[in-house]
Amino acid sequence: MTRTWDQEYSLLEGRLVDEGLDVDNIVARLKHQHIETASWAYAASGTRFGVFPQPFHAKTVDHKLEDAATVHHFTGIAPSVAIHIPWDKVDDYAELGAKARAHGISIGAVNPNLFQEPEYQYGSLGNASAASRAKALAHIKECVDIMHTVKSKILSLWFADGTNFPGQGDFRKRKRWFIESLLDVHELFTNGDRMLIEYKPFEPAFYHTDISDWGMAYTIATHVGPRAEVLVDLGHHLPNANVEHIVSFLLDEGRLGGFHFNDRKYADDDLTVGSIHPFELFLIYAELAAGEDAGLAGNVAYMIDQSHTLKNNVEEMIQSVVNLQVSYAKALIINRHALELAQATNDVLGAEETLRAAYETDVRPLLWRVRSEMGLPDAVSPIAGFRASGYAEKTAKERG
Amino acid sequence: MTRTWDQEYSLLEGRLVDEGLDVDNIVARLKHQHIETASWAYAASGTRFGVFPQPFHAKTVDHKLEDAATVHHFTGIAPSVAIHIPWDKVDDYAELGAKARAHGISIGAVNPNLFQEPEYQYGSLGNASAASRAKALAHIKECVDIMHTVKSKILSLWFADGTNFPGQGDFRKRKRWFIESLLDVHELFTNGDRMLIEYKPFEPAFYHTDISDWGMAYTIATHVGPRAEVLVDLGHHLPNANVEHIVSFLLDEGRLGGFHFNDRKYADDDLTVGSIHPFELFLIYAELAAGEDAGLAGNVAYMIDQSHTLKNNVEEMIQSVVNLQVSYAKALIINRHALELAQATNDVLGAEETLRAAYETDVRPLLWRVRSEMGLPDAVSPIAGFRASGYAEKTAKERG
Amino acid sequence: MTRTWDQEYSLLEGRLVDEGLDVDNIVARLKHQHIETASWAYAASGTRFGVFPQPFHAKTVDHKLEDAATVHHFTGIAPSVAIHIPWDKVDDYAELGAKARAHGISIGAVNPNLFQEPEYQYGSLGNASAASRAKALAHIKECVDIMHTVKSKILSLWFADGTNFPGQGDFRKRKRWFIESLLDVHELFTNGDRMLIEYKPFEPAFYHTDISDWGMAYTIATHVGPRAEVLVDLGHHLPNANVEHIVSFLLDEGRLGGFHFNDRKYADDDLTVGSIHPFELFLIYAELAAGEDAGLAGNVAYMIDQSHTLKNNVEEMIQSVVNLQVSYAKALIINRHALELAQATNDVLGAEETLRAAYETDVRPLLWRVRSEMGLPDAVSPIAGFRASGYAEKTAKERG
Amino acid sequence: MTRTWDQEYSLLEGRLVDEGLDVDNIVARLKHQHIETASWAYAASGTRFGVFPQPFHAKTVDHKLEDAATVHHFTGIAPSVAIHIPWDKVDDYAELGAKARAHGISIGAVNPNLFQEPEYQYGSLGNASAASRAKALAHIKECVDIMHTVKSKILSLWFADGTNFPGQGDFRKRKRWFIESLLDVHELFTNGDRMLIEYKPFEPAFYHTDISDWGMAYTIATHVGPRAEVLVDLGHHLPNANVEHIVSFLLDEGRLGGFHFNDRKYADDDLTVGSIHPFELFLIYAELAAGEDAGLAGNVAYMIDQSHTLKNNVEEMIQSVVNLQVSYAKALIINRHALELAQATNDVLGAEETLRAAYETDVRPLLWRVRSEMGLPDAVSPIAGFRASGYAEKTAKERG
Repeated sequence: MTRTWDQEYSLLEGRLVDEGLDVDNIVARLKHQHIETASWAYAASGTRFGVFPQPFHAKTVDHKLEDAATVHHFTGIAPSVAIHIPWDKVDDYAELGAKARAHGISIGAVNPNLFQEPEYQYGSLGNASAASRAKALAHIKECVDIMHTVKSKILSLWFADGTNFPGQGDFRKRKRWFIESLLDVHELFTNGDRMLIEYKPFEPAFYHTDISDWGMAYTIATHVGPRAEVLVDLGHHLPNANVEHIVSFLLDEGRLGGFHFNDRKYADDDLTVGSIHPFELFLIYAELAAGEDAGLAGNVAYMIDQSHTLKNNVEEMIQSVVNLQVSYAKALIINRHALELAQATNDVLGAEETLRAAYETDVRPLLWRVRSEMGLPDAVSPIAGFRASGYAEKTAKERG
Repeated sequence: MTRTWDQEYSLLEGRLVDEGLDVDNIVARLKHQHIETASWAYAASGTRFGVFPQPFHAKTVDHKLEDAATVHHFTGIAPSVAIHIPWDKVDDYAELGAKARAHGISIGAVNPNLFQEPEYQYGSLGNASAASRAKALAHIKECVDIMHTVKSKILSLWFADGTNFPGQGDFRKRKRWFIESLLDVHELFTNGDRMLIEYKPFEPAFYHTDISDWGMAYTIATHVGPRAEVLVDLGHHLPNANVEHIVSFLLDEGRLGGFHFNDRKYADDDLTVGSIHPFELFLIYAELAAGEDAGLAGNVAYMIDQSHTLKNNVEEMIQSVVNLQVSYAKALIINRHALELAQATNDVLGAEETLRAAYETDVRPLLWRVRSEMGLPDAVSPIAGFRASGYAEKTAKERG
Repeated sequence: MTRTWDQEYSLLEGRLVDEGLDVDNIVARLKHQHIETASWAYAASGTRFGVFPQPFHAKTVDHKLEDAATVHHFTGIAPSVAIHIPWDKVDDYAELGAKARAHGISIGAVNPNLFQEPEYQYGSLGNASAASRAKALAHIKECVDIMHTVKSKILSLWFADGTNFPGQGDFRKRKRWFIESLLDVHELFTNGDRMLIEYKPFEPAFYHTDISDWGMAYTIATHVGPRAEVLVDLGHHLPNANVEHIVSFLLDEGRLGGFHFNDRKYADDDLTVGSIHPFELFLIYAELAAGEDAGLAGNVAYMIDQSHTLKNNVEEMIQSVVNLQVSYAKALIINRHALELAQATNDVLGAEETLRAAYETDVRPLLWRVRSEMGLPDAVSPIAGFRASGYAEKTAKERG
Repeated sequence: MTRTWDQEYSLLEGRLVDEGLDVDNIVARLKHQHIETASWAYAASGTRFGVFPQPFHAKTVDHKLEDAATVHHFTGIAPSVAIHIPWDKVDDYAELGAKARAHGISIGAVNPNLFQEPEYQYGSLGNASAASRAKALAHIKECVDIMHTVKSKILSLWFADGTNFPGQGDFRKRKRWFIESLLDVHELFTNGDRMLIEYKPFEPAFYHTDISDWGMAYTIATHVGPRAEVLVDLGHHLPNANVEHIVSFLLDEGRLGGFHFNDRKYADDDLTVGSIHPFELFLIYAELAAGEDAGLAGNVAYMIDQSHTLKNNVEEMIQSVVNLQVSYAKALIINRHALELAQATNDVLGAEETLRAAYETDVRPLLWRVRSEMGLPDAVSPIAGFRASGYAEKTAKERG
């Protein structure tokens, strides 16, 4: 395809300027977008029905750093990688941080694992067994140490805790055990540290989950302290939830800590972000961009948490980052002035069409400019750049 | 059927005593159960596809009081009725209260209507139009006056506010308008007054609803003040929500204001409470009974809010009250000691079976004793008592 | 905005030609797209919480024809209008057909009303009352007569039948009553006549609906005869259903009769088609376009069935038609050759990106060419054309 | 607890006789209830987040037979066990059948595994790769051979086939591949053999599943032949589906092949059957019992398919069988005559209360008689009998 990107860009820029938009500012914001990828997304993963290991899968922490750095290499906006303990356990975390920096990236959120040890069969901080609760708390504290060593500012907490059967647990006791332990963790925080509390309605617990919706995560956060915030995973909602509304509500309350991006049609499917509901992703970014304008979104951590089972993991991660980039770009070119005017007069169709005009716009020419100015390997398509690089074949050979 | 209720009761009592339960206390709590019915549930209602008016439907406020009193007459535990303004608008609210008392009941929660006037097409307190917001606020304040006149302590607030299309409204602005107005209302409250804030995920708004889940109602309540609490309508949740968990969480936070009871399979179906998910209703009552034991549920208002489209309204209301009575009775006979022990040791099946034993118990003999001691017309079956009374035929003739 | 449509079109055409697409054929198919609007969508409608009548609403059948013709005037692809009996009851149906033709449109599907009469409170063809069943059958037969008079080929059947409570009805008896009556109706059909059987999971029945999913509609259709087909209403599915898969399955079985287009986030919200899930609409059209290529979709009736409560009805209908046009256009520019190749080799990401490339393309320049060649009032935006025409103001004044 | 079972039974029998029920017939039907357990339910299983292996878990096919026989020993109504190939692969299947018979049970349905081999990453019979399709077909044919050897009459087919992303697969091609292969399998069937085709909306495929609902399974079965029927797994439906309606519809069509029993709150949670929605289970059995009366349910296979992650597997299986027994017993004591009468006159509340009266009845005394007459170890509680037997401790020691 011989697309004439400069002509396309020029036409698009003309349109945006006509609408009164500050294109250079939009380009600058797109260059500063920061998406964090997850170390575990580079390893083999699957469903409860099985895992299909592939030669190219990352088998070591070094592989994961290499993969994360490759995603950043082709996209330019993925400069950090989250780690999971003990999956990424190393003897020397200072060295791990240094290795990451040598790859041109940094270590992002630290994620304790509170579900795979035998002691956690009936829960971690919500377990009726005091010994299990203590083990979980100790592990979280260990992760705070790791945070401090690798210079991370984020402790990302997902609890699989819950019950499978009515009567199995005492909801209120369990809730209080959570708050009690997290208050302890909050004590360890130094300047700038944050804990992000994730919520999820079900899986692996199938009757009740202790922190099952944003309201529970939020309430617990307010009890725990100012450095506790809520993490929104796009796949962790009951059917039909309006996620962009929740995002906006949390922004307004100053408790939106960050995201785990992915997409889903049914449950916590952990598919490529933007692959199923691209319009919803745009609407979420529309809230985020407005939140940035209002000074409410300065601290939000944007992380991808997916389960890569059918595509090359690095390629799927690049695709995901691009999908987030497309959504952010479309959110930035919304004609906010026209939108506010329509909203103020209850011109429903007018407001809607204003939003849709941004969504329907093909922003690929705009991203071509952004990537060109950033000097990326392939300004048109990071995926094509990756495919051309031979990285998938190389890693399959080296790691197979 | 010639059931021998005294033998059945005697066997049941024996079983309960064997388990260490205090049967007299259970009976006493059942006698003091208080379910509030809703005036509007006695009038014709339907779906958006139509209403089928019937001769027996209440056409006036007097009819509604008469119907509510009849429900109380046969059940003994429905001594108050909620009103809806302007549907129950009268010239003299003091007289309305007196009339109710003459019927042996009292006026319960006052419900402003914030959705039927033309000014509310785009919302009430969340409307972009300042005039609409002002009208809504004035109407709520009028209802506080009515509360004070009829000696009610509860202002029950349901807002239909929301949007149908992405872009139509500004989520954060609307949220702030809500808090601003409700702070104003809270100012008017005197000792013992409470506002119950209801949440609902959708309908009549189909894209976003301003107060769409318990977390939003709760957060707004905490901003508004100590006399603002959350109202749980059983039909106002996304599919598969664990309602008993939400109930327990709100109890623990001290913000569970009350219930709108009904049942549903799909959406806000407003069916007879307990008709579709009787086990869930039991589990909710299991939390409430435990909350009573813990001193957390003293203030909860239990109200029925249903849409009666296929059955005689009074008969359906009696059926509903009985279903709630059955659920409460089953919750009261849970062997709490055995349950706690099983929970403490993660004996999952043991805990579950303890709960199920109470649920599987046929409590009709116990309720027979309760109703007999209360001197009700038909101690075995309030529905049979109602059918025998000829009330349905009488009202059909008088009102037809 | 001074968009240079000829330049934009020229760039887009270049791209499509490079991919080997036959642009003239695509344009021809877009000109022949045929969307049927619904007479009732021009009148006032609302939710069970109320209706907000507006001056511009159609109050007569003539208003409805005028509105439908106006939608066709601005879009060029809405040349027929469905009618609903008795809402559109007239003395002389031949005259109604003539009036429509005088407006440049034709009468499309005939829809009997089987839910608003008192006899239908407990159902129509599924009612335990033989009298109610007979009344319903007679009304359907009357509608077949009307079909023949107005030269329509489609009888569109939606049954509200169902139950609200377990035990209320006998599922199997009711199913057999349906088949028995519909066999009778099928007898009346002459060449080319078709009955479309609509399914819906719930509302207004809230426990069971007799024809609740595509499988039931399909099975009944196979029992009834070759002229019975299934109608897919986009809002009539349980949460998360994959509608495009159902569409494809029915196409393959030769039983996809037609659509009722609309959109929804929660239930049967009846919002503007494409307003909530534009990507899903695209995926449905991707199946339809492929079905056309395979000779399977020749007979599908495309109808809009929405409830217009917040926007001007005619304007919302134009918006809806445009959204369908956009989706069809995007489906037509899918690079089918590349897609098949990727599918054949299980290149998941490649297949996905091929589809997404079509979806991300801004097809407004292509539609500009289509509308220009069709000589429409505003080739860029039918909505802008409508707004400029003063039709909304004119009808508000005339009908108010 | 010193319950006087004979007195309780006597009171219950009196009640049932008063209603005109044939108690001896009910007892006879309860004695002939036949629930099949699944071999894999005795082994360790878990979620995608991990498996917690326990000493008592079955590690060999012999362990599984021993566990299945133990369930039958305590319940008396679980005389067969389904097998899964290759999980239960043995050299000599005739010997396997003999071993089962030596344990007092028989081999039930044979289940091929079509999802765990690397070739099935992109599907089995629906895979674009002809080699994968051929491998799957060969494996199914191998399972037909095993059926014939172990004297089983049922081939139970669950396909994990589907796609995760729009565009990944061609829906219609895949559908045709399924029909083509299953026609081949159907050829191999001799008298009495049946294939049960299972449907599931999602997981492990998260965008589309080839056989995603009962309608697709049913349609494919009708294409494949008279020995193809539909298998209903209670956890394989979209949220809020009315499963009892589907059951009734399939009974009426003569295509209800069997069940995979389990329970769920959210997705395919695979919890203990009856643990979350006991009323729904009763309503399903109400349809089955009515189907038996109508001669439509003679051939239905009742199988339990659960994932046991928190309880002792054998104990959970006994609990499951008991829950099914309770549901069937309650269905058998429905006053059918009164129900039909109420239905025929649209006495909604009367019909509902008739059903509820059966459900609210405590059938434990009735089951006490059934089990006493069958000579089971513990007629009151099979679970208590199991706990007293020391089997759990014994197997933990032997297998640990």
